[in-house]
Amino acid sequence: MAHTIHSKKQLLTRVRRIKGQAEALERALDDEKECSAVLQQIAAIRGAINGLMSEVMEGYIREHLSPDVPEQQRNEDLEKLVSVIRSYLK
Amino acid sequence: MAHTIHSKKQLLTRVRRIKGQAEALERALDDEKECSAVLQQIAAIRGAINGLMSEVMEGYIREHLSPDVPEQQRNEDLEKLVSVIRSYLK
Amino acid sequence: MAHTIHSKKQLLTRVRRIKGQAEALERALDDEKECSAVLQQIAAIRGAINGLMSEVMEGYIREHLSPDVPEQQRNEDLEKLVSVIRSYLK
Amino acid sequence: MAHTIHSKKQLLTRVRRIKGQAEALERALDDEKECSAVLQQIAAIRGAINGLMSEVMEGYIREHLSPDVPEQQRNEDLEKLVSVIRSYLK
Repeated sequence: MAHTIHSKKQLLTRVRRIKGQAEALERALDDEKECSAVLQQIAAIRGAINGLMSEVMEGYIREHLSPDVPEQQRNEDLEKLVSVIRSYLK
Repeated sequence: MAHTIHSKKQLLTRVRRIKGQAEALERALDDEKECSAVLQQIAAIRGAINGLMSEVMEGYIREHLSPDVPEQQRNEDLEKLVSVIRSYLK
Repeated sequence: MAHTIHSKKQLLTRVRRIKGQAEALERALDDEKECSAVLQQIAAIRGAINGLMSEVMEGYIREHLSPDVPEQQRNEDLEKLVSVIRSYLK
Repeated sequence: MAHTIHSKKQLLTRVRRIKGQAEALERALDDEKECSAVLQQIAAIRGAINGLMSEVMEGYIREHLSPDVPEQQRNEDLEKLVSVIRSYLK
């Protein structure tokens, strides 16, 4: 079973928190809140996204690159991971 | 008038797009979509957040550090910007 | 006097440390050291570079965007900072 | 043979370029060059470091997580990669 499924609950909690942060940012702009508060909220969302990426990438590596995965599937998944790493670390 | 007010509409469009991306990510996890698609969606949200930070930081610098701003206010706003830069570039 | 001049000694110390880290990385590759050590060295250099950027950017903002700077010079320097922020946060 | 060995030449070229960039940055500070040029040089070094990390991480994943690697060694190397990812994406 894919890692995003068996840790689905945990990941959904993280994503909903990020969604909540985006909603709070929307309200802060709507209510014309102080700009430095807006900057800090944006920085917090980026931190949360980096944490989420790190967790999903780790699960992906553990599961999709495991020796138990059929070779062809494993190679395809490896190439997909490499392309995400290239764009994320750019 | 603060930059986040006169470019409010533009910034709200960006934030709503990020919120939409977070909702799409939530659905992808809920629907147990392919993990590599989840990785790509997370990378896209981070790119959008970096773009938003860059735009808001630019507006902040133009407006809050302008010579027209009373000295004390200007110094306070400068210190707030510096603390966001330190945490964001860490 | 530019911030990179009055804090020249401090900045040079940081840059020389980064140079030393790059030399150590070169030796690690040359001596065919363990790959995970190489990964950690690269991560350490990036951390040092981010710290350096944060310090120089802070000095730049304090000095080049100060109200004491003649308007035209100030505007030119502001545009240069904005273009670095855009590329660095991309 | 470790990826950092069979692509040693290529990696050494990248690291030497980064070392050269650090040396150029040192000279720019020493010669009290324009601060915006210093900012751009720092941004360029960070870009080069990210590119190097991406290449070494890719090689690491391909080689150290391959099914041909004895299980215990493979698990140890996987944990080392995960800890670098966590710190790098923080």
